[in-house]
Amino acid sequence: MTPISVTALPGLPEVRPGDDLAALIAEAAERLAVRLGDDDIVAVAHKVVSKAEGQVRRLSQISPTAATSALAAAHGKDPRHLQAVLDEAAEVLRADRGRIICRTRHGFVCANAGVDASNAGGDDLVVLLPKDPDASARALRAGLVRLVGARPAVVITDSFGRAWRMGQAEVAIGCAGLAVLDDWRGRRDGDGRSLAATHIAIADEVASAADLVRGKDSREPAVRIGGLRRHVTVEDGPGVAALVRRREDDLFG
Amino acid sequence: MTPISVTALPGLPEVRPGDDLAALIAEAAERLAVRLGDDDIVAVAHKVVSKAEGQVRRLSQISPTAATSALAAAHGKDPRHLQAVLDEAAEVLRADRGRIICRTRHGFVCANAGVDASNAGGDDLVVLLPKDPDASARALRAGLVRLVGARPAVVITDSFGRAWRMGQAEVAIGCAGLAVLDDWRGRRDGDGRSLAATHIAIADEVASAADLVRGKDSREPAVRIGGLRRHVTVEDGPGVAALVRRREDDLFG
Repeated sequence: MTPISVTALPGLPEVRPGDDLAALIAEAAERLAVRLGDDDIVAVAHKVVSKAEGQVRRLSQISPTAATSALAAAHGKDPRHLQAVLDEAAEVLRADRGRIICRTRHGFVCANAGVDASNAGGDDLVVLLPKDPDASARALRAGLVRLVGARPAVVITDSFGRAWRMGQAEVAIGCAGLAVLDDWRGRRDGDGRSLAATHIAIADEVASAADLVRGKDSREPAVRIGGLRRHVTVEDGPGVAALVRRREDDLFG
Repeated sequence: MTPISVTALPGLPEVRPGDDLAALIAEAAERLAVRLGDDDIVAVAHKVVSKAEGQVRRLSQISPTAATSALAAAHGKDPRHLQAVLDEAAEVLRADRGRIICRTRHGFVCANAGVDASNAGGDDLVVLLPKDPDASARALRAGLVRLVGARPAVVITDSFGRAWRMGQAEVAIGCAGLAVLDDWRGRRDGDGRSLAATHIAIADEVASAADLVRGKDSREPAVRIGGLRRHVTVEDGPGVAALVRRREDDLFG
């Protein structure tokens, strides 16, 4: 198959609520003399998306409940930070040694319901996940279409911990214009034999590939992936919502 | 950071027990006029590694126990295939609707303990995981050093299902010469603020990136990833064993 290339776009300025993120990304691509095309994918770390959308809270403006304060004391957490976490969580799955694993309202299972103080843009700030990351991806794609005259796919990503394996890996939390699952059922293997259940989570693999060219201390949230034309669709499609496993169907969880 | 490139090496012939996989990969790289270098990573789908190592069983030579036959009947499985699965499993975590989630002897949690009939090389065959995939990666790396005069990292991969998310993603099951976890603790974010727990599972992200250029029906198990020099080490290192989360430390599992 075609080789793929993964390139970090040059750093963005600190993003603030109301900023036009599509414009910042289009300018970054231009600085690199990269022409974003119909068969490219633009992967964006969610933090800048959240900031542009104002999905940021000031700790100094959060009043934790008594229950939250007690839980925070038990886990050695800042009660205002914990309150922000609980406000984003549909369900707390585990809490141990200061780590809180939640199911978010989107159905994602991750630490701290995705609330994060690093790279937040200030000591008093925490960044939340976007309210509807698939909608964010569609809006960002529409902005890019307008600005660059092409229709690249957009994937919004975050680093999630995993069951059974150490470390975090980057996954897709929102996307537009990408076939999130590549369905090989019914196709044949190299022996002409039908394949076992095989749905490849392309959107997550794209998120991981993008993360490899990104430094956590850099301001390079946007990455261009070229060479995956076969997974890019004209329609925005169902987005990452299609990757959230129904709980009753989850043998692994 | 440097862009990365991900290129599938041209198809290998059907691999058989005793084949010199390093030689087959070196020849494939040569056919593509790719010179494998010290800063490259070679990602290999485990199936060809298992076949070269003879980690293959003939269903016709497996005698299922009475208990296995009963379980197979309840789940609509071939009892000989299920026996091969149970022989590879240290523990069965769940069994439902024909899907068996196991912990393997290596500590991996995956469907069917990694036993797979697709692309096995014959109707009567199933392929197992390598006995010690990190050792397989070290041996493959040593073979490549001998043949190509460079010291690329080697990652052996498989597709695993995940908790909470649909679809499979490619992960590392063995590796040599790659810093499997990139440890950002103690480093600073773009605001000069210390980062929260941040260990990036580089080996898994590399496995996912490699999978994007590979067709499941192709004979392109080997992929070259260029541009990740900063993660390639002279020493073989601890391998994927360092990614297996201790059970008592697993909040997600």
